[in-house]
Amino acid sequence: MQELVTTIEQSELISAIDTVWVSLCAAIIFFMEAGFALLEAGFVRAKNAMSIIAKVIMDIAFGGLAFYIVGFGIAYGVSNGWFAFDTGITDADLGLGLRVSNKLFWFIQLGFAIAAISIVSGAVAERMKVWAYAIFVVIFCGIMYPLAANWIWNPNGWLALRGFNDFEGSAAVHAIGGFAALAAAIVLGPRLGKYGQDGEPVAIPCHNLPLAAVGSFILWFGWFGFNPGSTLGAVGNWELIGTVATNTFLASAAGGISTMFYTYFKYGQIDITMTINGVLAGLVAITAGCNVVGPDAALLIGIIAGVMVDVAVILIDKIKIDDPVGAIAVHGVNGLFGTIAVGLFASDGGLFFGGGTALLLTQCLGVLVIGAFSFTITYVIMTVMKKTIGIRVSRSEETAGIDAVSFGVEAYATFE
Amino acid sequence: MQELVTTIEQSELISAIDTVWVSLCAAIIFFMEAGFALLEAGFVRAKNAMSIIAKVIMDIAFGGLAFYIVGFGIAYGVSNGWFAFDTGITDADLGLGLRVSNKLFWFIQLGFAIAAISIVSGAVAERMKVWAYAIFVVIFCGIMYPLAANWIWNPNGWLALRGFNDFEGSAAVHAIGGFAALAAAIVLGPRLGKYGQDGEPVAIPCHNLPLAAVGSFILWFGWFGFNPGSTLGAVGNWELIGTVATNTFLASAAGGISTMFYTYFKYGQIDITMTINGVLAGLVAITAGCNVVGPDAALLIGIIAGVMVDVAVILIDKIKIDDPVGAIAVHGVNGLFGTIAVGLFASDGGLFFGGGTALLLTQCLGVLVIGAFSFTITYVIMTVMKKTIGIRVSRSEETAGIDAVSFGVEAYATFE
Amino acid sequence: MQELVTTIEQSELISAIDTVWVSLCAAIIFFMEAGFALLEAGFVRAKNAMSIIAKVIMDIAFGGLAFYIVGFGIAYGVSNGWFAFDTGITDADLGLGLRVSNKLFWFIQLGFAIAAISIVSGAVAERMKVWAYAIFVVIFCGIMYPLAANWIWNPNGWLALRGFNDFEGSAAVHAIGGFAALAAAIVLGPRLGKYGQDGEPVAIPCHNLPLAAVGSFILWFGWFGFNPGSTLGAVGNWELIGTVATNTFLASAAGGISTMFYTYFKYGQIDITMTINGVLAGLVAITAGCNVVGPDAALLIGIIAGVMVDVAVILIDKIKIDDPVGAIAVHGVNGLFGTIAVGLFASDGGLFFGGGTALLLTQCLGVLVIGAFSFTITYVIMTVMKKTIGIRVSRSEETAGIDAVSFGVEAYATFE
Repeated sequence: MQELVTTIEQSELISAIDTVWVSLCAAIIFFMEAGFALLEAGFVRAKNAMSIIAKVIMDIAFGGLAFYIVGFGIAYGVSNGWFAFDTGITDADLGLGLRVSNKLFWFIQLGFAIAAISIVSGAVAERMKVWAYAIFVVIFCGIMYPLAANWIWNPNGWLALRGFNDFEGSAAVHAIGGFAALAAAIVLGPRLGKYGQDGEPVAIPCHNLPLAAVGSFILWFGWFGFNPGSTLGAVGNWELIGTVATNTFLASAAGGISTMFYTYFKYGQIDITMTINGVLAGLVAITAGCNVVGPDAALLIGIIAGVMVDVAVILIDKIKIDDPVGAIAVHGVNGLFGTIAVGLFASDGGLFFGGGTALLLTQCLGVLVIGAFSFTITYVIMTVMKKTIGIRVSRSEETAGIDAVSFGVEAYATFE
Repeated sequence: MQELVTTIEQSELISAIDTVWVSLCAAIIFFMEAGFALLEAGFVRAKNAMSIIAKVIMDIAFGGLAFYIVGFGIAYGVSNGWFAFDTGITDADLGLGLRVSNKLFWFIQLGFAIAAISIVSGAVAERMKVWAYAIFVVIFCGIMYPLAANWIWNPNGWLALRGFNDFEGSAAVHAIGGFAALAAAIVLGPRLGKYGQDGEPVAIPCHNLPLAAVGSFILWFGWFGFNPGSTLGAVGNWELIGTVATNTFLASAAGGISTMFYTYFKYGQIDITMTINGVLAGLVAITAGCNVVGPDAALLIGIIAGVMVDVAVILIDKIKIDDPVGAIAVHGVNGLFGTIAVGLFASDGGLFFGGGTALLLTQCLGVLVIGAFSFTITYVIMTVMKKTIGIRVSRSEETAGIDAVSFGVEAYATFE
Repeated sequence: MQELVTTIEQSELISAIDTVWVSLCAAIIFFMEAGFALLEAGFVRAKNAMSIIAKVIMDIAFGGLAFYIVGFGIAYGVSNGWFAFDTGITDADLGLGLRVSNKLFWFIQLGFAIAAISIVSGAVAERMKVWAYAIFVVIFCGIMYPLAANWIWNPNGWLALRGFNDFEGSAAVHAIGGFAALAAAIVLGPRLGKYGQDGEPVAIPCHNLPLAAVGSFILWFGWFGFNPGSTLGAVGNWELIGTVATNTFLASAAGGISTMFYTYFKYGQIDITMTINGVLAGLVAITAGCNVVGPDAALLIGIIAGVMVDVAVILIDKIKIDDPVGAIAVHGVNGLFGTIAVGLFASDGGLFFGGGTALLLTQCLGVLVIGAFSFTITYVIMTVMKKTIGIRVSRSEETAGIDAVSFGVEAYATFE
């Protein structure tokens, strides 16, 4: 009987430990929304600072409720490989071996869903209509993101069954968000004055870089909940958690350093806004593989990501896609790269470690499907909205600022 | 012997798990003070930004020491139902079934005490004398808050014995703070220039809304320590923690959305400062009942809270009570509502779920006593101080700004 | 067999609990870098705000990689009492009784290393060359800090063997950082215009005090990961964690209050920037002894620290050492004081508690060696760099601002 008691207690203890872990990681992941909001607000002009913060609040509130009402059921209900259908938060066993409650699992998944949409809010900054954005948020968090999560993380998802490894969502969060951002920015078109009469991009200055820094530090902090927290439990994972945290750090530091060197040697000055993006690029790129690569591979992934984001920002600018905060380069390009990098660098199965091409091909397939899916659906939705309710604020609103016209406020009324 | 070892280890493991949980939740709750400070600083004029931050530091430092020296003993010593008397942090068993040390319990309780007083600092912003405020802080955290905590959370407290449910303090933290804020704002009177010659309220603009947003995001994050952390232990509570986190989120999102719709349909523009308050109102309102209501009830509570805060802000303004940051509407009104809502929506015992009126009446009684107590005592203390040492800065200081006169600084000396 | 299973499970549970604890504390400690960056940015002029944030990013990225590649091996490899030599993160047992992975231990130690160097970035603000700073970061985090960590925390370190008590680094983090900051500020010389023609110090105003407040609140929060997290495990430490958290709070509150009173009675106004430093001084001073002193001693240590920082800031200014953010007074002086205070106030072994002078002498010896070591090496490195590559920006860059010249940005381009 003593042994029986012991056994019962242990399952209770395990659930308690895992609950502490998941609950606090989920809170930290939730806090990343502050990071997105402040980074984006700092990177735009003052006249649009509060409206972009409002859009991130919409990501949380509208996106969160959509993910509650239908999204979670689509992602984690009983899947036919492509989708499930359920509403609210089921009490059924999800087949994921969870030792935390489904509600707590929902809460951490919520953080991933609203992080993905918050990538989009940056790319459409300074010109998208508020309510059109809200509609997209609902569709994205209610249907689009949940479908991708179903494929990748549902135990019956078609990509999961093929051995696709996306530990915490280089594809499922960042690529899907980044490619939606790309489509949205294309359909919206560039901000007024972004391209001169000669077609050359005009730099539109960030209004408050220290505020952007607050946001980027919060994101950096949040990633140490995001990646380690994706273990979804600490019991049995204590070695893995250390590995994930270390890899996450190393890639971010390497991303920052490679951007510093790249911009210094290319322009003669360190570009600090790009350095912030370099750090984030390293974080995005390591997110898929932080559980399966070694520290040297993490460093290399970070270094590559730091350069890729620099090149991508310039390139995207040049082909006249206006992304005020660099969301496409950070999350789209490096989400793509990071997912593929698993196939190259995984200690077990990666091409460079003698694992052949099987994993690499699966990774490529998965992320390309996710990217294409997200891009296409977003393109269609945005185009339909453009032709019906309209997605772009009026010329006069864009000139005056969305804060003043749609929200009736000034971010900094007076410094009296 | 093996079994004996096992048993000993288990109580040690349980204390370790609960300590990790309470310690980290307490740290996050402590961080909410940053949220209060920055939200309040952003909502006032630049000339008073640093003095309000100083007042929140006073909440922490003076309030914290008062709660250490006498407050905790009054709240959690051996109670006669109304108060206890003890000093410092006793080593005795508090009768709460804690598996963490009394010192750690003190540390998380500290966060609640200084959160309650930080509600008041907002309502008295831009016009209260610094040292008079410090005196009030000491009385509030040393005596007033502890008395209410004794009634509600001490195992022998008279409200606790009646089955009053205030999981984490819609009444014990928010209503007591909100009603003290109301009394203080009344005795202080409105800021110079707040009401025109015709008696109509004049909008005094917030000087730095992105800063206020930083604060509000920190508060939102902090609530995921505040509410789940109130379990005071994870072992045995793993299902409850998921429920609390989910309810907390749903109410906050619903509060934000209902404010967005309400202000959009009423004014033709989404009011983003009110939306921030709507999110906070949802959080305040769910705080009492997040452990006993279902998710749909949480949504409904949030929706109602989001509207109530809008209506209350306008109403309080109209009856010439000047509350620069909306603290009374957010914390007082919604603390009241949230406590009563338990009696309506509790899955077990709530009026709408067939539980009759017993719980509802207890909830009403409790929160009305707490509100009346807090209002009355604050009114008396402020009036006595007003007639003796004075509570309001001079006309010239109010015009020049408290920062310059009482603190000799400018928040933004120069942007050179 | 059942018992065997039980036993295996328990070590797994213990590692899981400790991993949750260390991982989340480490994340919170990492977040302190945001605190350093924003505090320092707010305290300098706008024209150098982003370059100081860039330097903190360098602390993290360059310092972090240096600590990964060689630093950790020097600190925690098999020590001859003075140093060890290893690279990367060894898998060997470190002799510290850890129940978390070496990688996770590395991650929390990383936070201490980059915190120490971030003290220096403040003292050299507004005038140090970017790449010279980067070189110093690499040497500091790769060699200097690891040597001190070896002496104090390696099980074979010569100070560890003498019973030196520096729970979380008043000496190992704060004194080493503070004395490096002192040497660097001396070699660099004061900012242009800091001293008038009469030799009297000229106040150079802080450009954004609310931003500095954001930073200081993040640091305050972070300390509740920093000090309790230094237990390196929760199992067996649940009482200690409560003691550490309580002592940490009490000293910080006392430090803030004593500065408020000191500046009020000395200048007739509360000095809010000094109050922030007073809080931090209390935190620094309690860091060495938070595990071995009682709450009353913690209060006393905080009160003394709050006064010492005020006196030290004025004194350092007077002897023409220009420390724009007060880093030397906060971290150097109070790191020194806090380490010695252990010898005075430790409940077991402290001079004032009948423990004689043995511990006191060890504490004095340790912190003086650490301080002298850090000061001397830094002085030499900075002098060598000054005579070779140069450490100070040009006059024109200093006048225009490092942001514009070395980084090509403005913190606040336009508030349009």
